[in-house]
Amino acid sequence: MTDELQAPPDMPGVVLAKERTLDGVLGIELVEVSEERCRGRLEVSDSARQPYGIVHGGAYAALAESIVSATTAWAVMKDGNIAVGQSNTTNFLRPASEGTIHAEAIRRHRGRTSWVWDVECTDDDGRLCAISRVTMAVRPMPGG
Amino acid sequence: MTDELQAPPDMPGVVLAKERTLDGVLGIELVEVSEERCRGRLEVSDSARQPYGIVHGGAYAALAESIVSATTAWAVMKDGNIAVGQSNTTNFLRPASEGTIHAEAIRRHRGRTSWVWDVECTDDDGRLCAISRVTMAVRPMPGG
Amino acid sequence: MTDELQAPPDMPGVVLAKERTLDGVLGIELVEVSEERCRGRLEVSDSARQPYGIVHGGAYAALAESIVSATTAWAVMKDGNIAVGQSNTTNFLRPASEGTIHAEAIRRHRGRTSWVWDVECTDDDGRLCAISRVTMAVRPMPGG
Amino acid sequence: MTDELQAPPDMPGVVLAKERTLDGVLGIELVEVSEERCRGRLEVSDSARQPYGIVHGGAYAALAESIVSATTAWAVMKDGNIAVGQSNTTNFLRPASEGTIHAEAIRRHRGRTSWVWDVECTDDDGRLCAISRVTMAVRPMPGG
Repeated sequence: MTDELQAPPDMPGVVLAKERTLDGVLGIELVEVSEERCRGRLEVSDSARQPYGIVHGGAYAALAESIVSATTAWAVMKDGNIAVGQSNTTNFLRPASEGTIHAEAIRRHRGRTSWVWDVECTDDDGRLCAISRVTMAVRPMPGG
Repeated sequence: MTDELQAPPDMPGVVLAKERTLDGVLGIELVEVSEERCRGRLEVSDSARQPYGIVHGGAYAALAESIVSATTAWAVMKDGNIAVGQSNTTNFLRPASEGTIHAEAIRRHRGRTSWVWDVECTDDDGRLCAISRVTMAVRPMPGG
Repeated sequence: MTDELQAPPDMPGVVLAKERTLDGVLGIELVEVSEERCRGRLEVSDSARQPYGIVHGGAYAALAESIVSATTAWAVMKDGNIAVGQSNTTNFLRPASEGTIHAEAIRRHRGRTSWVWDVECTDDDGRLCAISRVTMAVRPMPGG
Repeated sequence: MTDELQAPPDMPGVVLAKERTLDGVLGIELVEVSEERCRGRLEVSDSARQPYGIVHGGAYAALAESIVSATTAWAVMKDGNIAVGQSNTTNFLRPASEGTIHAEAIRRHRGRTSWVWDVECTDDDGRLCAISRVTMAVRPMPGG
């Protein structure tokens, strides 16, 4: 079965240690990947908050973008392709201020040149905080 | 003239020092505000990058969200209202990896319950890297 | 149970016979409604096509907008509110050229001032043709 | 100068007379085209209205989609490419019920595989009624 969730792979060509990147700063982890679904999370700290103490809208957008980008990149790599973020639409539904933000993404479309994912972000009580629609462009690997 | 750009104000009720928040971590500054336009920037560091060294899509979304949120909050406060992020649609047009990301936002709509802004993010050479459409909900201040 | 699908109601205050409106011209029908879900369809004719014979992107957007608008209006009417379309984001995933387009909408958010719905449009073979995210503003009825 | 607006061209391969299509039914005309800008309009009739007599949200989405699709198709045809609608995000800012809806589109991005346009729809008094962001996928002509 191709859609069994599995541990996220190490990706080739990475140039920055994760701890230094936005993922590291925001406490974003990719938890499980598959061709059609993936899961991740963000541990809320001040780095993910805005000045009034709630999770910044950009943190939800970043969480969705990170897990979908990494998963799409992994999935298309075996065909010699790369994935590039094209658009991210995030709706903010309920504020959160602490704990873990849990993200689950479902692939809605696998086209030749773009993949579309829907992402749900929930808090520790399972309440929906944000939803994102993320489109990834898929292109041949440069020089590939 | 009501739309003269001015220095950003200190906002009341802030509970976190900016340095600790997402704005601080990402190097986001609000530069000028007015009722219909605002400007900000992000100094690129590893904290705003993804593992391949380019600026993370979530960083553009966060930059747009930050400057529009702060400006709308400031503009509606005098009527006893608050501003809450409702949605953020960001299109990624061109990768950037260093320097400063410059954001300029134009208000497209001032409704009773929502404001809509368009944001352009450019690099140091003036090339368009991302565009965002941000909708802020405007509500009465709780207990106001 | 509040979310049992039921036949769509007649709405008060309508000023145009349906046959004359965009819904009539496009062959759009609202099939079932509830607080959290609704279904509709569009019978494809030339009126819903673009010049190359496939269903026009605007037809999917209109179908999603129509069923969500009518359902939200019905749902909030009992509290003395009206529903007004605020935004519609439609992704086009697969072209269709004939038969029936089937739309199913799921409510993702019921806020005080806005409701958010996700809509899937499939063809007669169940293939996903378009997905929409529709935000409706909810406001007090004028003069209510 | 490549961006001088000009009369819209006849497009090859059209299979339906315009009068029969959604453009014909809604009274949509493409007025001027260029590589970076285009203009069109919609003459409001009941076919573009919803049951309460105002212009249907889907009509704005269709107007934006039509003028951007036709213009992009025209612009990429000379390189042996076609244009396919990928997404349409429309925000509804102000209701209109009669007269002409005027649409003006500005190209924001010309990538190898996608073009992004911003569209403003105004009424006869120049008031902004809706704004759309339309992404067109650009692909090699099948069999080309």
